[in-house]
Amino acid sequence: MLPDVLKKLSELISFLPWIGEKTAVKLAFFLLKANPSYVQKFADTLRDIQAQLHECSTCHGLTDTKYHECAICRESLRKTEVLCIVEDYLDMVAIERLGIHKGRYHVLDGIISPLSGKSPKDLNMSDLMNRVSSEWIQEIILAFNPNIEWEATSLYIEELFSGKDIKITRLSRWLPNAGFIEYADEITLISAFRGRG
Amino acid sequence: MLPDVLKKLSELISFLPWIGEKTAVKLAFFLLKANPSYVQKFADTLRDIQAQLHECSTCHGLTDTKYHECAICRESLRKTEVLCIVEDYLDMVAIERLGIHKGRYHVLDGIISPLSGKSPKDLNMSDLMNRVSSEWIQEIILAFNPNIEWEATSLYIEELFSGKDIKITRLSRWLPNAGFIEYADEITLISAFRGRG
Repeated sequence: MLPDVLKKLSELISFLPWIGEKTAVKLAFFLLKANPSYVQKFADTLRDIQAQLHECSTCHGLTDTKYHECAICRESLRKTEVLCIVEDYLDMVAIERLGIHKGRYHVLDGIISPLSGKSPKDLNMSDLMNRVSSEWIQEIILAFNPNIEWEATSLYIEELFSGKDIKITRLSRWLPNAGFIEYADEITLISAFRGRG
Repeated sequence: MLPDVLKKLSELISFLPWIGEKTAVKLAFFLLKANPSYVQKFADTLRDIQAQLHECSTCHGLTDTKYHECAICRESLRKTEVLCIVEDYLDMVAIERLGIHKGRYHVLDGIISPLSGKSPKDLNMSDLMNRVSSEWIQEIILAFNPNIEWEATSLYIEELFSGKDIKITRLSRWLPNAGFIEYADEITLISAFRGRG
């Protein structure tokens, strides 16, 4: 019974994660009734987002296409000697929001997972090795979600840099076993970060 | 720390109801990584939605601009003698989804609310009176959310048509007191509809 265009928008919205079919109809209806300039701005931003962002050439986070490096890598006051390794950009955003990590990041863009056919060469691992060789790094923080596959990735990285004088730490088990960094509350995440070892 | 365009999209998304700031960032990130043709279709549909829909000239529901009347009003097999009055289009969608109302609808587009300065003339009330005068109507179902303001609107409509030979019914109290039609589960809503009186 929905008019074609409202049905189409609802279907597009319901394709988003965490949004069911009923909520999608309500959101589509909200957009229909919303301020026209808001809706046009939304449409324009959506149209441009993929063209206006690319990966940071250093950490593989995200940055506007006018820069090679992201805002964090460009920040001169950051401690270069502490490197926090994360699975994806959203984990980087979650940790950065806490304001407790003053160093830089490296986004692996996945995990070592034999089952999914992901090996170290499918990740940003060689760039990590280059960074560790060329920069003076004292500590590498493995800020991974605590599960079996991350265990394998952590062991791999620890092995990789075992000959070097670098302290490699993991988030403490304050992070619940089934937890994910991007869903953790701030206090849990701060505790996990402070209690790393 | 978010790149400008990702921050802008996150802010636009977080303006939507039921979506918090953190979820907005995740949705923006999802859209960034999504299939480009999906994102472009989303942007195009969003850009066009307000221009491609308008109110049904009969029931004040919504319809594609190529039609005067909505799909329900155009449907010739609908019972014209049962009219279901709702506050807004989403309530109409919620009831229509149940498949138990075979009649037509009338969308008031609000409620009588002295506190918000809304009187009957601000609603689609005169159109309702015209419909009731010109069509042969046996039953009017007041499918309103059960609260004080709806009580006033219901009384107003009951008074309005008291001289006519029309049965005016309300949804049963199966609908929880604080409930809203658009949030009710199907079983509750079907019970409320069937138990009207």
